[in-house]
Amino acid sequence: MRLLVVRSLLPVFALAISCSSAGSQVAYDSLAQEMLSFGLRKGEAYALLTELTTIAGHRLSGSRGAEIAVDLTKTMMEQRGFDNVHLEPVMVPHWVRGPVEEVMVIDGSGGVEESLTICALGGSIGTPEEGIEAPVVEVQNFDDLRELGSAARGKIIFMNRGFDHGHLNAFAAYGGAVDQRSRGAIEAAKAGAVGVLVRSMTHAVDDVPHTGAMNYEDGTTKIPAAAISTLDADRLSGLLKERSQVRVRLRLSARTLEDVQSYNVIGQLTGSEFPDEIIVVGGHLDSWDKGTGAHDDGAGCMQAIEAVNLLKRIGLKPKRTIRAVMFMNEENGVRGGNGYPLDSRRKGEAHVAALESDRGGFAPRGISVHADSSVLERVRRWQPLFELLNAGRIEPGYGGVDIAPLVRQGVPGFGLVVETHRYFDYHHSDNDTIEKVNPRELQMGAIVEALLCYLISEEGL
Amino acid sequence: MRLLVVRSLLPVFALAISCSSAGSQVAYDSLAQEMLSFGLRKGEAYALLTELTTIAGHRLSGSRGAEIAVDLTKTMMEQRGFDNVHLEPVMVPHWVRGPVEEVMVIDGSGGVEESLTICALGGSIGTPEEGIEAPVVEVQNFDDLRELGSAARGKIIFMNRGFDHGHLNAFAAYGGAVDQRSRGAIEAAKAGAVGVLVRSMTHAVDDVPHTGAMNYEDGTTKIPAAAISTLDADRLSGLLKERSQVRVRLRLSARTLEDVQSYNVIGQLTGSEFPDEIIVVGGHLDSWDKGTGAHDDGAGCMQAIEAVNLLKRIGLKPKRTIRAVMFMNEENGVRGGNGYPLDSRRKGEAHVAALESDRGGFAPRGISVHADSSVLERVRRWQPLFELLNAGRIEPGYGGVDIAPLVRQGVPGFGLVVETHRYFDYHHSDNDTIEKVNPRELQMGAIVEALLCYLISEEGL
Repeated sequence: MRLLVVRSLLPVFALAISCSSAGSQVAYDSLAQEMLSFGLRKGEAYALLTELTTIAGHRLSGSRGAEIAVDLTKTMMEQRGFDNVHLEPVMVPHWVRGPVEEVMVIDGSGGVEESLTICALGGSIGTPEEGIEAPVVEVQNFDDLRELGSAARGKIIFMNRGFDHGHLNAFAAYGGAVDQRSRGAIEAAKAGAVGVLVRSMTHAVDDVPHTGAMNYEDGTTKIPAAAISTLDADRLSGLLKERSQVRVRLRLSARTLEDVQSYNVIGQLTGSEFPDEIIVVGGHLDSWDKGTGAHDDGAGCMQAIEAVNLLKRIGLKPKRTIRAVMFMNEENGVRGGNGYPLDSRRKGEAHVAALESDRGGFAPRGISVHADSSVLERVRRWQPLFELLNAGRIEPGYGGVDIAPLVRQGVPGFGLVVETHRYFDYHHSDNDTIEKVNPRELQMGAIVEALLCYLISEEGL
Repeated sequence: MRLLVVRSLLPVFALAISCSSAGSQVAYDSLAQEMLSFGLRKGEAYALLTELTTIAGHRLSGSRGAEIAVDLTKTMMEQRGFDNVHLEPVMVPHWVRGPVEEVMVIDGSGGVEESLTICALGGSIGTPEEGIEAPVVEVQNFDDLRELGSAARGKIIFMNRGFDHGHLNAFAAYGGAVDQRSRGAIEAAKAGAVGVLVRSMTHAVDDVPHTGAMNYEDGTTKIPAAAISTLDADRLSGLLKERSQVRVRLRLSARTLEDVQSYNVIGQLTGSEFPDEIIVVGGHLDSWDKGTGAHDDGAGCMQAIEAVNLLKRIGLKPKRTIRAVMFMNEENGVRGGNGYPLDSRRKGEAHVAALESDRGGFAPRGISVHADSSVLERVRRWQPLFELLNAGRIEPGYGGVDIAPLVRQGVPGFGLVVETHRYFDYHHSDNDTIEKVNPRELQMGAIVEALLCYLISEEGL
């Protein structure tokens, strides 16, 4: 028997439900409070993330680190008594950076004047061993690039449009600049350029280059592409203003190898009443090969495990199955996210909801809802409960890359919304390491996820 | 003429007012958006804080750093064209740490076995030069201490109750533990102890001691008091479990000198219609002498200057006076906060509101209102505007220590509410330095303050 009591929407709120098994009334607000205090006192999210980032290290698809992470997260789930812990195979791309990545500014007599801090963009081809040497031309966007006309030919194009700092949401700044990284090599090649340098995608002004996915297009020449640190982007831009010409030599040893066998890692708390109705909570297990992917997305993976772990430790028996999924290969292929709905194990399963955390392990602010308005309204009824966790912003928005294939099949998608200001200081760079993660902020994300999963499990959508 | 149009409370909200000077309608939501984007793009909060923390360094009352900070902040306001920039004198205590602070664990033959990481608590007396040597007794609270009876005599009391991590609000954890620091020396002395060691007030487990104010009481012996790092508190607690007795030698060179002349630093944007109606926005300029007081409370001071600066740069002419106040001596005396309302310059002034930021320069979440319910309801009408800044939590709560004397006189008090998880990792310790402050989070606090000051100026309370 279900008993819903909504006393008042604001500011006092209680939603009570009879627990037939216990024969007692358990108010969700008490439960949220219990998840909060128990989770903050005894939660394991930070310990798990420390383990992941120190034992596996970075986890680029196809790497040894990714392989270790698959075994490690499987063990984490098994040790915590998750049900049906298993691997689901997916083939993943295997791009390697190799040992060489450098940009040298060449002086008038062909000597090296100085070096600039860069790293290859993920997916880039390498250069010949001796590198490619060419004059640099700076542009801010693809219109600039097209206007160059034949002046782009044989050049290294320097895409130097920075973040617009005026956006409150850091992802909006990223979204306004990232075309340079994702399509820069394609557009530069079309203009006849021989290489591309892209200003790092970050709010920070520092000497750390930020990698990330770049693309090639069939029928367009593949040219090497690298990210340059924001400090050295400013340096290079300054040199270009001072001089009639700046020549650089770009050397990259990056290359793409054969696809590799890898896995999504899955474990769950099986539903007591509707075991085949599934609520997915996940993150992506792979990372870039800079730093150790602590925020992106070790945080989201460990929060998913911790969310299920927390429900178990509190002794809850959810009606529906709550399933932690470590998706493989979000960064450069989404093979895990695409593969999950296609796996034969999905037969006979109905997915009720999918929740992803992939915005860093920062203080949660709320939940984005990628579903129709009835689902949004449903979840908004629970807003006061999330407000107890300081995470009451429930708004329409994107769920996550890995759950998008489920959402496209009509499954309601949810994203953990967090404080975004610091994210791009770390993202895809050597800065993304465990000490940038605050244990309490990380844990709070897991608590919010646990609460959402449990509410959906008990109340449906 | 004032024209208020409240279209709808949630989710769409617009509050419009006629600007008679411009003859045009300016919607506050557009203004909030302008403050946001201009502030994030061009704001100076982080540059100001970098200046303060590097040029003045720490700013303990009576120190050279505090003196430099007075001149520096006066110059900051003058350079930005603030009105009526001036100093208001206050006498402040002058406690100095001195060069020696150490705790040595003494072995059976009187030799030094190991040292523990400590620092004197602010206001502590020193020890004799050779130190005091005594057995350590660990307690969790004052009840434990009283139960010791005569067993406390001649001992060094080790107050080792940690934070309760189960609180979402970090200040609640602090509030639940800080009696050990503030009254530990009094209670221990009453029990006959000769010294006190207090577990650092922090969520972190690390090797950094956190200082902070401690008190003595007339008629009770003054005994020396120090904070011990959480790692070494655990170490010491472990030793006490292993052994029948642990003796330590405590040496502190701390002492209190004569009071020193210092100042509150004040500048304003004078109101165009009601110049004698004052809205105070402030922080405290002093800090402890560990780290450089970047979060506590350099952040709040620079946000106050930046809030006024931002209103000026946007070209607003507030009806009421918006006054930035750098209060001196919050940490160990509140002489500036207490002195401000008493200064003769207050004659003829009416204070409409006082706002303080003293919870660190973290991402703002909202505003606490220390005033009657009509003021709370008034400010809550502006909630959707603050929601545009991701700072929509408007709740009853404390304003700040420095504005409390104004609040006691009936002035509505407001506190900037921020994300608290990281604060006590840095608070009162060598960790509180500029690189722990995120430029965007700091600036957002200034933007929220600017908006609140302006709304109160134009709309009243």
